[in-house]
Parts: sequence; structure tokens; C-alpha cells
Amino acid sequence: MIAEDYMQPEFTYIDGGVCAPQGFSASGVHCGIRKNRSKADLALIVSRTRCATAAVYTTNKVQGAPLAVTRAHIADGYSQAVLCNSGNANTCNPNGETLARACCDLLGDALHIPANDVVIASTGVIGQPLPLEPFARGIPAAVAALAATPAAALAAAEAVMTTDTYAKTQALEFTLDGKPCRLGIITKGSGMIHPNMATMLTFITSDVAIAPTLLQRALSEEVKDSLNQISIDGDTSTNDMAVILANGAAGNAEIRDDGAAYQTFRAALHRLCAWAAREIARDGEGATKLLHCRVRGARSPEVARSVAKSIIASDLFKAAMFGADANWGRVLCAVGYTTGDFSANNIALTLQSAAGAVKVCEHSAYHPFSEDEAAKVLAEKEIEILLDMHDGEAQAQAWGCDLTYDYVKINGDYRS
Amino acid sequence: MIAEDYMQPEFTYIDGGVCAPQGFSASGVHCGIRKNRSKADLALIVSRTRCATAAVYTTNKVQGAPLAVTRAHIADGYSQAVLCNSGNANTCNPNGETLARACCDLLGDALHIPANDVVIASTGVIGQPLPLEPFARGIPAAVAALAATPAAALAAAEAVMTTDTYAKTQALEFTLDGKPCRLGIITKGSGMIHPNMATMLTFITSDVAIAPTLLQRALSEEVKDSLNQISIDGDTSTNDMAVILANGAAGNAEIRDDGAAYQTFRAALHRLCAWAAREIARDGEGATKLLHCRVRGARSPEVARSVAKSIIASDLFKAAMFGADANWGRVLCAVGYTTGDFSANNIALTLQSAAGAVKVCEHSAYHPFSEDEAAKVLAEKEIEILLDMHDGEAQAQAWGCDLTYDYVKINGDYRS
Repeated sequence: MIAEDYMQPEFTYIDGGVCAPQGFSASGVHCGIRKNRSKADLALIVSRTRCATAAVYTTNKVQGAPLAVTRAHIADGYSQAVLCNSGNANTCNPNGETLARACCDLLGDALHIPANDVVIASTGVIGQPLPLEPFARGIPAAVAALAATPAAALAAAEAVMTTDTYAKTQALEFTLDGKPCRLGIITKGSGMIHPNMATMLTFITSDVAIAPTLLQRALSEEVKDSLNQISIDGDTSTNDMAVILANGAAGNAEIRDDGAAYQTFRAALHRLCAWAAREIARDGEGATKLLHCRVRGARSPEVARSVAKSIIASDLFKAAMFGADANWGRVLCAVGYTTGDFSANNIALTLQSAAGAVKVCEHSAYHPFSEDEAAKVLAEKEIEILLDMHDGEAQAQAWGCDLTYDYVKINGDYRS
Repeated sequence: MIAEDYMQPEFTYIDGGVCAPQGFSASGVHCGIRKNRSKADLALIVSRTRCATAAVYTTNKVQGAPLAVTRAHIADGYSQAVLCNSGNANTCNPNGETLARACCDLLGDALHIPANDVVIASTGVIGQPLPLEPFARGIPAAVAALAATPAAALAAAEAVMTTDTYAKTQALEFTLDGKPCRLGIITKGSGMIHPNMATMLTFITSDVAIAPTLLQRALSEEVKDSLNQISIDGDTSTNDMAVILANGAAGNAEIRDDGAAYQTFRAALHRLCAWAAREIARDGEGATKLLHCRVRGARSPEVARSVAKSIIASDLFKAAMFGADANWGRVLCAVGYTTGDFSANNIALTLQSAAGAVKVCEHSAYHPFSEDEAAKVLAEKEIEILLDMHDGEAQAQAWGCDLTYDYVKINGDYRS
């Protein structure tokens, strides 16, 4: 129902993940932070040359040590490598920043690049002591394993997983100045997901030539419409970070203003980040259903985003979706506690899936529908919640998942 | 750890619920809104004389029709009766206000009082058509059943229950001007509970003589520290309402300023509302544990309240408590996404229950503790989360419950 302006045919998904853009290699190894030796826990992404680099971070006031180090390292707008461990968030550790810097030193030495060209990230349990020893062993192994192949990109994606049930990696190709350009991405969920100006962990590579300030602008704009529009459980993590590295190897004229080339890059970035948002939601902890909310007719983009996110973040609505119960009053309730100035008096709501579409509410009141038909629509694995506020022209989307027994099970005993 | 200034020995819990204050009678009957005939669905509370009346309401932008009618009826500061049905929220019904006014007319006629001295409330499913017919039958029956007895107060408390597993009714006695005075309360949960400037449904009676403006001030102040400090699921209802009726039958000198008598009344009101907050949390949908968070050392009362509520509202922390997992990093994470200006660098955290106390965090970092001992503490039914921010002098409390399989089960199929 909402025009996906950005879904232009000239964008083609390709293989290779973060290694699809020219000049990038990657690896994933087991270094011993996790006890399970079959689970990789250290990911590395390296560019042949320095990259324009931009990032957005969690707004949580308690932040992981790696975020402070990364902020300092990319203050000049450039970096060349990304190092990320899973199994320990390196958050609420007294020696966290010292440790993160020591890891960057080790990697800089191994790659013969300055330590302050390393982006560092961590994900896992908060407040667990983290020694340097696994990194001392793992960093040389990760460097030795670097390869510019789809398999290497997948290995890196697997190494950042926590409760994710599958690795999330994608790439796409588009054209600038007649040159083929590429974007590659690794992203992960799957609990403590309610990003606020950033998302869990997302690493994006590109061979586009672009000035760091415009790269930052593109990423900061983009997350509002995709990575910040996800919620699994309403818990904003301490370690959320999305970072993009662009090394210019595609040979396009460096993007220095917001003209046509910037708009094309922006559109390609949106397509990839919307893909990531959808995958994070689909693989939410314990999820059996993907919930995709599209709001239109809102007074402003801010209201549209806020309403869409409020709906997919409602525990009550998420539990109703688990039960395939068309309890649309819970959608209206969630709209009502959204912040912002708007009218909630003329809302229309349709639930849609591969099994059909059922209008359940019009003029903010009951619209007669068949419960049997609704149950059929809601039995599918992907549910669209189509809400028209009839209050303006703005649109937005948000992605979430149902609330299930397994979410409770996973989080009742996550540490063990 | 936090001084309960209000827990003064001169307050004594007594029997009688909302009928404990002089001049109040109550009843609860089955009128047919619910299909289950063994479940009462219409509650009535009546005072012999007109009462100073104050109320606070949900901030949800989608509001139940009864709220608009009640707002209008108590605009003059007075009322004489409260009518509340369960089984249908009378929200998102095109004829909702007309119906609510018709109910007040019926009750006014039956009691020989003006219809605009009736407070009306509804709780149940949103967006379900609601006919007048059950009220036409039920209101005369409820009036006929009125009695000034503990059994009648209990019947009224039972008639407002939805997914509550037990009726929540209480009363206490205190002294003003040498006269014994009383406060009685009915409150209910137990899902869609994340009140914002009001709570689900709470009806308070008193025989104190007090001016309506001071009664409103007392209630508005009080809910900040008790009824607004609960969260079951983060969903702010469309029908939240707390209302207090004071008929002056105790014979104290009418409270007209915020002197000693006001302070005593305020303290008694706090004790009763804190009791209600605790009971609503204990009986949260699917709950197996009561979570009571006490924050001290905060920069301001606002920060203290916000931090306490953020902790007990975190799905991740609630699931960890269900699993008796001392995953304290989730508490720090929840503190971090609290709004407001504060330092999160010197937090100490202790988990406490009838089985003992375990300090798990100091200076916002891991504090060595025995996992076995922590598991024993968390196996109890009532858990205290004691958090010292070392950032100021302010204190606050909040009440919640664990997130369980049963919460998901109840809400996956609430309507049927």
C-alpha cells in the first residue's frame, strides 16, 4: 500500500556479503570467548585501502567500552578494519576501554595499519569480566584467515551471532557514473532490540567513493527509516552500533554533494538497511511471525514512524499475533500512547498476509469481518499491519515479531 | 533501604473495603455483558451524601467513552455514585458516549440522584459493540443489592475483575481532629498495565471532609509515587482511571489547606495506593513473582521514578527474574535508556528477598557474588531490586512482575 520509492529495479542483490564490494576481505574464527568451540566468536572485516567511515550508536546512557574507542578512532572520518567479538559485550567492565584499545593495537600491528583505523565492537553478556588472552590468540588467526570470498563474508557474519538463529548477510549492486558499485552488509539481532538512533550491530561495506560527511549524513538519515524502526522487546541495548566503510574502489567520482549520485547511493543504502531491519525482526528471539507495519496518512514522518514502532513494540499486540487473534483494539491502544500531536479518530486498519487481507477497523471503530478469514490471514509467517490515519500525507514502516513462549524461555536463561 | 516515611504506625488496616468509610454501600451483580453467568460484571458504589470527587485518567490518545462522561460529571468537584462494568471497555464504539450517558441516566433514576453525579467506568475488550440492554437489567439489580458490608465491598471488587486472579480490596483507619476517618479502595489489573498519570481502574472511598481541589491535589500527587509506578507489560490502557470520593461523614473539620490534616490524609492515601500498586503488580498477567524496585541516591525524584519504572518494565529483566537468573547487566541496561539527566557510572545493585540479599554490582561493574546464593534469593515469590545511583538524594519505588509463559498464553487468546 505504501509506495516503496526506493525499491527501484536497478538495484540487484548479489552474492558476497561484505566482501562483494571491491577491496574488502573478511574472516570469522573461534578465539575462546565462548566456551562452545564450534561457535565462532571473532569477526574481522578489512579494506585494502582506508575508507570513508560513518557510524551511529545507541542512545543508552550505559554504553559498551568499544563504542567510546570506535567513536575516537573514526573522529577523523576514516578507518580501515572492523573487529567484532560475540559472547561478551565488554560493557560495565572497569578495564573495558583499556582492553578494547589493546585489541586495536594487536590488530593494527598484525595488519600494519594504525590502531586508530580500527573500528571495534562487542556483543554478548553485559558485566562479565573479559580478558585479553582470547584476542591475543584470535586476532592473528583471524588475519591469517582473511579472504575476499562469499564464504569468508559468511564466516564473519556467523561470528557476530548471539541468539540469532541464522547469519544475516546481503549485498547489492548499482551504478554510479557508469561504474558498477556495491554495498555489502552484516547485521545481527536478536534480543535487547529496540534501537534508538542506532541498531544492534550492523556493518556495511561499499566500494563507492564518497566524502565522510556525506556518508555520515546518508547513514544518519537512513537509520530513522529502517534500523531504528525495529523492536523485538523494547530493550535498547548498551552496544548498538551501525557502521559503514566506503573505500572508493568502484572508481566513481567521489560523492561530495547531495546531487543525483548521492540520491542513488542513499536509495541503495535504504534498500539494504530495510532488508536488514526485516531480517532482524524475522529472527527476533523466539519469533514465529514477522510483523511488518505500514502507516500512511500521518501528519508527519515523525508521527508515522512513532505510530508504526509503537504498534510492533506492544507486548499485548505481539502476543495476540502469536495466538493469531485479530484483536485490533490493541493496535488502536498502541497508537494512542504514541507521543506526538495527531488525531486518532479516523483510523482504518487492515491485516494482510499471503492468505489474503481483512479490514478490521474503520473510522477508529469496529468494521465487520469474518473471524475465520482473519484467523487464516494471521496463520501465515509474515503479517502486514496496514494502518491509514487519514490525518495527513506522511508514511513510515516498522518491523517486529510476535511474543512467544520461546522468547520467555530464551531470556529466562540466556547466560547459561 | 528506602525510608518509608509514610508507613506510620497510626494507620491500621481494617475490614470493609470501599464500605469501610461511613455512608458508603456497594454491590456487584451479573448483568449479561459477560457470557459466563458465574462472573459478576457490574459494580456499584454509592454514598449516602454527595462527595468531593477527584480523578486522574490515562494519557492514551485513544480513550474509552466512559472517561469523557466521567470528566464532565465531576467537573464541579462532586459526585455520589460509581458504576463500572467489566467485559467490555466501551472504547472505539461509535455510540460509546451515548451509551455511557444512558447508563448514568438509568442509575440516577434508580437512586434518585442527578445523572451527572455518577462516575462511570468500563474495562474489557476494546472495539466490541456494547448494547444498553444488560445495563437496563443490571442497574436495578445492583441498586437492590446495595449493602454497607464487607461482603458487598468484595462483590463490587469481584465485578470489576478481568484477568485478575483475585479481588483487590483494602481499607485503613486513621485519625483527624480526634475523629476516626477511613479510606477504602478497589483496584484491578492485570494486563495493559503501564499507567501514565493514572492507572487501570482504582476506586477509593473516604469519609473524610475535604475540599475537592485539595482532594484532586492529593490524588494527582499520590499517583506519581504509587499507581503510576507499576508496569505489567508496557501497554498504557485506553481506560485507566483512578477516582476518589470523600463524603465527609467522619465529621473532621473540612480540609481546606495543606496543613497537618492534609499531610495526614495524604500519608494515609499513599499507604493505601502503594498497597494497591503492589497488589496489581503481584497479580500481573501470568506473574509468578512480584518485583519491587527501590531506587535511592538519584539526582531528582523524576529520575528516581523513571529509573525504577524502566527496570521493572524491561522484558529482558522480567524474563530473567522468571528464570531466577541474576543477570544484573539487564538492570544496568534498563537504567541506561531511562530519559533524564543523570550519571550511570557509580551504581550499586543488591537483589534481596526472604532468602537473603546478594550484592551483584558496585561502581556500575561486576561485584563478585555466589550464583548459588543469588539463585536462592531469586527463587522467592517477592524480589526486591535495591539500586543506589550515588548521584543525589532522591528516592522512588516501582512495582512489576516477571514475564512468563502464561503471560503469552493469556494474551495469545484473551478475547475468547
